[in-house]
Amino acid sequence: MRILVVGATGTIGRAVVAALSASNEVISASLRSTTVKVDIADPASIQRMYRSVGRLNAVVCAAGQAKFAPLAQLSDADFRFCLDNKLMGQVNLVRFGFEHVEDGGSFTLTTGILAQAPMPGSAAISLVNAGVEGFTRAAALEAPRKIRVNAVSPPWVTETLQALKMDTS
Amino acid sequence: MRILVVGATGTIGRAVVAALSASNEVISASLRSTTVKVDIADPASIQRMYRSVGRLNAVVCAAGQAKFAPLAQLSDADFRFCLDNKLMGQVNLVRFGFEHVEDGGSFTLTTGILAQAPMPGSAAISLVNAGVEGFTRAAALEAPRKIRVNAVSPPWVTETLQALKMDTS
Repeated sequence: MRILVVGATGTIGRAVVAALSASNEVISASLRSTTVKVDIADPASIQRMYRSVGRLNAVVCAAGQAKFAPLAQLSDADFRFCLDNKLMGQVNLVRFGFEHVEDGGSFTLTTGILAQAPMPGSAAISLVNAGVEGFTRAAALEAPRKIRVNAVSPPWVTETLQALKMDTS
Repeated sequence: MRILVVGATGTIGRAVVAALSASNEVISASLRSTTVKVDIADPASIQRMYRSVGRLNAVVCAAGQAKFAPLAQLSDADFRFCLDNKLMGQVNLVRFGFEHVEDGGSFTLTTGILAQAPMPGSAAISLVNAGVEGFTRAAALEAPRKIRVNAVSPPWVTETLQALKMDTS
């Protein structure tokens, strides 16, 4: 299969690319890439990416930023950033991607455990992750040509906990 | 108690006001009101409302618009409208409202059954409702002074089905 992995250079994205590459043609896209560069917070950037990569069997998104901070410190701009990035970025990957994906293909989005199991500091992320899940459930009903839309919700990964200086045990 | 009902002139809001008025001081706010007027899609309008109404024991939101339409017909502007209105409108009622609510008070937001039980046409509403639920779960953990944050998820109500010319049986 031809699989586009968005967020291919991130912690989870690198693992996804490694797992899929043995038996698939993987096209890696990311914010930092020099080959297929994409900023999912920018709808025009998503459209350019799809035009550049050709027909696909699957799209996997492991990209999407959102801000972890106490609710009282989250600004209007912080919420806007989270909505534009991890939430609408992934929504737009699906909306703009349908026409580039073959019959019976798939979209796999990434939410996260904070959608259902919040913690202090997760208000914006919990909002965004739950929103992605709500959209995914609905979009799956309307996807054309037997295309599937799913989301996976990873737990905390060790690399992220280490980056945030949180307990990894 | 002094209870602010936002969306007091809507289908559900009118019923909430009627139910609460017997034993509480209810302050009714809505987009159409001539007394306490508020547009929850406008953060400045929410701030003005809170400054005008004084101290509160509870805030109930039955306001919040979102667009029901086939996914393929939902525009960037439609998603933006839904995010600004039913999603961030309610998030901002909580964020900006904490300082106006007494110790042990409460916020009650409104989501809807489409969060968990989508149907064709509900992509934007399912996203928004699920997002409100995710935010609510997280915000409840950080609310100060024993203030509570909850959301209720009503099923379809007859008046709405009639307005949309859908089966009410």
